[in-house]
Amino acid sequence: MDMNQLAVNAIRVLSIDAIQKAKSGHPGTPLGAAPLAYELWAHHMSHNPANPKWINRDRFVLSAGHASMLEYALLYLFGYGLTMDDLQNFRQWESLTPGHPEFGHTKGVEATSGPLGQGIATAVGMALAEAHLAERFNREGFPIIDHYTYALAGDGCMMEGVSGEASSLAGALKLGKLIVFYDDNGISIEGDTSVAFTEDVSMRYRAYGWQVIEVNDGNDIRALSTAIKAAKREQSKPSLIHVRSKIGYGTPLAGLAKTHGEPLGAENITRTKETLEWPCEKDFEVPAELTAHMESLVKALGAVETHWNGMLTSYEKVHPDLYKLFMACHEEEAPDLSGDPAFWAFEGKAATRSTSGKVLNLLADRLPNLVGGSADLAPSNKSEMTSKTWLSPDDYSGSNIHFGVREFAMAAVCNGLAVHGGLRSYCATFFVFSDYLKPALRLSALMGLPVTYVLTHDSIGVGEDGPTHQPIEQLAALRATPNVAVFRPADGRETSASYLAALHRKGPSCIVATRQDLPSYENSGPVAMRGGYVLSDCEGDPALLLIASGSEVELIVEAQKRLAAEGIAARVVSMPCMELFEEQDDDYRASVLPRHVRARLAVEAGASQPWYRYVGLDGDTICLDHFGASAPAHLLFEAYGFTVDNVVARAKALVEAIQK
Amino acid sequence: MDMNQLAVNAIRVLSIDAIQKAKSGHPGTPLGAAPLAYELWAHHMSHNPANPKWINRDRFVLSAGHASMLEYALLYLFGYGLTMDDLQNFRQWESLTPGHPEFGHTKGVEATSGPLGQGIATAVGMALAEAHLAERFNREGFPIIDHYTYALAGDGCMMEGVSGEASSLAGALKLGKLIVFYDDNGISIEGDTSVAFTEDVSMRYRAYGWQVIEVNDGNDIRALSTAIKAAKREQSKPSLIHVRSKIGYGTPLAGLAKTHGEPLGAENITRTKETLEWPCEKDFEVPAELTAHMESLVKALGAVETHWNGMLTSYEKVHPDLYKLFMACHEEEAPDLSGDPAFWAFEGKAATRSTSGKVLNLLADRLPNLVGGSADLAPSNKSEMTSKTWLSPDDYSGSNIHFGVREFAMAAVCNGLAVHGGLRSYCATFFVFSDYLKPALRLSALMGLPVTYVLTHDSIGVGEDGPTHQPIEQLAALRATPNVAVFRPADGRETSASYLAALHRKGPSCIVATRQDLPSYENSGPVAMRGGYVLSDCEGDPALLLIASGSEVELIVEAQKRLAAEGIAARVVSMPCMELFEEQDDDYRASVLPRHVRARLAVEAGASQPWYRYVGLDGDTICLDHFGASAPAHLLFEAYGFTVDNVVARAKALVEAIQK
Repeated sequence: MDMNQLAVNAIRVLSIDAIQKAKSGHPGTPLGAAPLAYELWAHHMSHNPANPKWINRDRFVLSAGHASMLEYALLYLFGYGLTMDDLQNFRQWESLTPGHPEFGHTKGVEATSGPLGQGIATAVGMALAEAHLAERFNREGFPIIDHYTYALAGDGCMMEGVSGEASSLAGALKLGKLIVFYDDNGISIEGDTSVAFTEDVSMRYRAYGWQVIEVNDGNDIRALSTAIKAAKREQSKPSLIHVRSKIGYGTPLAGLAKTHGEPLGAENITRTKETLEWPCEKDFEVPAELTAHMESLVKALGAVETHWNGMLTSYEKVHPDLYKLFMACHEEEAPDLSGDPAFWAFEGKAATRSTSGKVLNLLADRLPNLVGGSADLAPSNKSEMTSKTWLSPDDYSGSNIHFGVREFAMAAVCNGLAVHGGLRSYCATFFVFSDYLKPALRLSALMGLPVTYVLTHDSIGVGEDGPTHQPIEQLAALRATPNVAVFRPADGRETSASYLAALHRKGPSCIVATRQDLPSYENSGPVAMRGGYVLSDCEGDPALLLIASGSEVELIVEAQKRLAAEGIAARVVSMPCMELFEEQDDDYRASVLPRHVRARLAVEAGASQPWYRYVGLDGDTICLDHFGASAPAHLLFEAYGFTVDNVVARAKALVEAIQK
Repeated sequence: MDMNQLAVNAIRVLSIDAIQKAKSGHPGTPLGAAPLAYELWAHHMSHNPANPKWINRDRFVLSAGHASMLEYALLYLFGYGLTMDDLQNFRQWESLTPGHPEFGHTKGVEATSGPLGQGIATAVGMALAEAHLAERFNREGFPIIDHYTYALAGDGCMMEGVSGEASSLAGALKLGKLIVFYDDNGISIEGDTSVAFTEDVSMRYRAYGWQVIEVNDGNDIRALSTAIKAAKREQSKPSLIHVRSKIGYGTPLAGLAKTHGEPLGAENITRTKETLEWPCEKDFEVPAELTAHMESLVKALGAVETHWNGMLTSYEKVHPDLYKLFMACHEEEAPDLSGDPAFWAFEGKAATRSTSGKVLNLLADRLPNLVGGSADLAPSNKSEMTSKTWLSPDDYSGSNIHFGVREFAMAAVCNGLAVHGGLRSYCATFFVFSDYLKPALRLSALMGLPVTYVLTHDSIGVGEDGPTHQPIEQLAALRATPNVAVFRPADGRETSASYLAALHRKGPSCIVATRQDLPSYENSGPVAMRGGYVLSDCEGDPALLLIASGSEVELIVEAQKRLAAEGIAARVVSMPCMELFEEQDDDYRASVLPRHVRARLAVEAGASQPWYRYVGLDGDTICLDHFGASAPAHLLFEAYGFTVDNVVARAKALVEAIQK
């Protein structure tokens, strides 16, 4: 048998063996899409399995993440470090082969995938990173960034809106080195895709401004090869390679939904191996000749990095400054900027969205590789880096990105920008629309990517736009998400503290900022990086703890004065970031919120849920557990009890109740 | 001036006057899209302003909700009950004219809109409701349901993925009576849409299987009229009327992003009125002749309902059973089914996703109008109503819907199905993907629609599929959302209680169910409709409260026995729904969770945030504040401390600490 065909069948056989052993998994796509995946990895992709982190490698994203065994089989065959043992431990505790591919967990996996549609958007981000870095750093004779980004998507990916958003953006940006395979097997879990999906996908992609290449037989390796070459040649627009394949190819169940998401069973596996004329008797075995073939293939693949390394050495000599900048862009650790006085110079009244814009611009001037933008709200979000140009298909070197009204794709593209390497990314929208992008934020968190989310218009302070635009539950929702830091700064210096803390996190941060003006506080500053701190203390032991974040800090500061006049000693705690506060040691936390003080009042114009952790059964909250309304903001704050009067009244009632 | 042109200009002038007075709002689209909106409402839409709830009216959804003044001006001119005073109070506290249109708040507003893209998806749901009801109830000579659904969308709507998902579904379902206007003004907030949006939208809609009609001048009323007629004639596919218009038409700023979202200013308003040759001097004034014209127009519109009422009377005589069923479908209150023993007959081990499927099927046999489905996961979600057929373009009478892999559009379509009238809707997906549909769930909550969300695979119990598929923060996120009831039942009877409570809510409910088997409890049953209750009490005063939901109830029930053997009296509280529990009176809540018992341990395989409300500063939680992993479920539960041993150990430590 032809070696390439043998390799294709090895992917199939290893996949079904592993899924059978794991007693769970998705054999349908690995069986159907093995030829295109193998052909791509073996003969078109520029990669070096010996160094999965090589900067200029082609990227491959398995958007159809449930087909993980396809990728693991490839990683095994191409010598990325996965062993046959790893394949045998597919989907097991602490194995390198989890149910869906996980970035940072398995060498060679470029992005965590599984939540459908997002892989395409992540790939758009990677292709955009490539275009941007290439434009900034390539010089005559030195194409140091010059690679393709591939994604493999299934019917599910194509039905999800996020793939449409991202593909439309990729078309507008003419990302010619993005190549998406659409593995069109016509089957989804509820049966034939035509029950819900009859559109002409190729025509839709042409409408987005893509080149579309059709391959009518997913087993036709020659046609696949021709298609990939044509896709690579067309560099003025992204390419969709629309491949018609058979789900569960080679099995007695080929073409049936049943092959999508469960093991085939021993009998079907035996018959599949017969059909494929598989030469090995035992499970998890590949012919020695294939192993030898793969070894020589991989060796040849490695040469391309050797060549590139030579080019980089010359680049360093010819363009030393650019080289230095290039390397600085690829530093994983951000510089420590907390000693820079510019970040602490904020005074007077300002909306935190304005100070957020200022801090962002300070960072833009200090970091070599910050890119980002808004989902069509840059003027409102104050998210433009004014010293930088706008990215466009005519000049990819711009650092400001127009994402269009596409929050979800924006966030997923930012994941792609970040996970590509070489760049730090941020995105911006109204806080209430963090709902639209949440599934991508979750992937930022799972991948540990330091994407910054600039989320302005953070409460009923939105005012007249009304309840559809006023966040209520969003703070609670994001705070409950693992590995996300949610910052709601009270003034300019807290805003700086938030951004600077965010820089050093291995995960996403949300900067939640007001539309309306806020005062600034003498005692705010770098201490805010501890997440929660005593902004204004009382004399002696506090009878009461007043805790707030963001715009409501103003209320408790005023209330403290009024209470003091009435002989009630209240401590004011500003809590811009609960996650950072929880990372502090017990002593620090107890020094801010002494355990014996049970009269605790939390004030925040959002859902109360996150605050019970700090106020307990005996405390109280002034929060918002209902939707807002359309009216000038100050009227809403009044109507809903966000007044100094109410804080004072509730504080006094609380102190009384506790003393009883 | 021609009366129709005068009416079009009245919409424009009232809009800019109101926005100016409110000092905020979005004049651009009302100015640009006034001709199409007026022409539609005056000469094509079948509606009766005297009865905005007339069952067979055409529906109109303003997907570009920021253009609310366009709709309010129409509602004023067509006599829907809005007064000139209401227009003058645009965006003010408690006015009938909030910043974005709100269903249930302003007569004639068919759906809450503003979050972009969703209006199109909601309209798809309405058109689907029409098709379904028509197929079930229309008989020869009695087209009692026979209306169109219109939506008006802007560039932002077209960029959002949800509109693509919904439009693809509408194409697959051949919803021929759905007509979407795309007001293509080429401008969004960051400037010319071409910076991020260069696709051929018409071609994309043709790819979805829609008829596309182009109107090159949004002021050409004759062309608009011809287009609407052609759209109505084509009943085998939905129609997109692609209208090129000028944002801010008539103003000195026409064509500029500046007209999108802020008042024009007095000077520009004066010049606009001159350009439009507006005859009135004062603000908020319309010519008497226009008022007279509108009155006669509206009178003529009313005739169509009179005719329909006559038809319905005959229908009642000719098809009395169908008539009765039709009226039953339109009952707003659901029947009280809690006395039906079938709901309480669950015994033995079962996954709550299985009992959820059974309860859903009990409801399907008892409710005349339940429709719904899954985002391609029906076999996993157990969401098929087995006694009902599947809806398809060949037969819309089916009650099971294939939504495709489109969670967000699915939920928005369910909003449309529910808000249309005549139907109750549900949708299903994996719980973790509630993230994908959250923005539509928020609109269910804002509109007070009793959509049921069936969310299975509710924790690390998902097992091998790994962290991308394991919910952690989703319970907290949904519980924090106003007007949403989140149910996480522990067994079959609690599942029934959840569904039955959901039936009577004026808002959405989430039924969060396990993949894995759970035991059933003797004492569960209708009492679970109180949200939280004593499932198993100890002898005497409890030293400890053990609280859990869903799959973790099993752990605390076992722990209670072990603790009793060691002389520790622990009460077991099952808490399937925090929202319902909070709706109980103080006495009941204190009887379940006595205030003096401070040793409280909450156990739930999800984020801890919601539980501090019940355990306070002194209590403890066994929850999950990090992501899961890919492995068999029982190993994950063990690894993360969800074992009886750990519950017992932590409970003992807690009791000891409290006693100190």
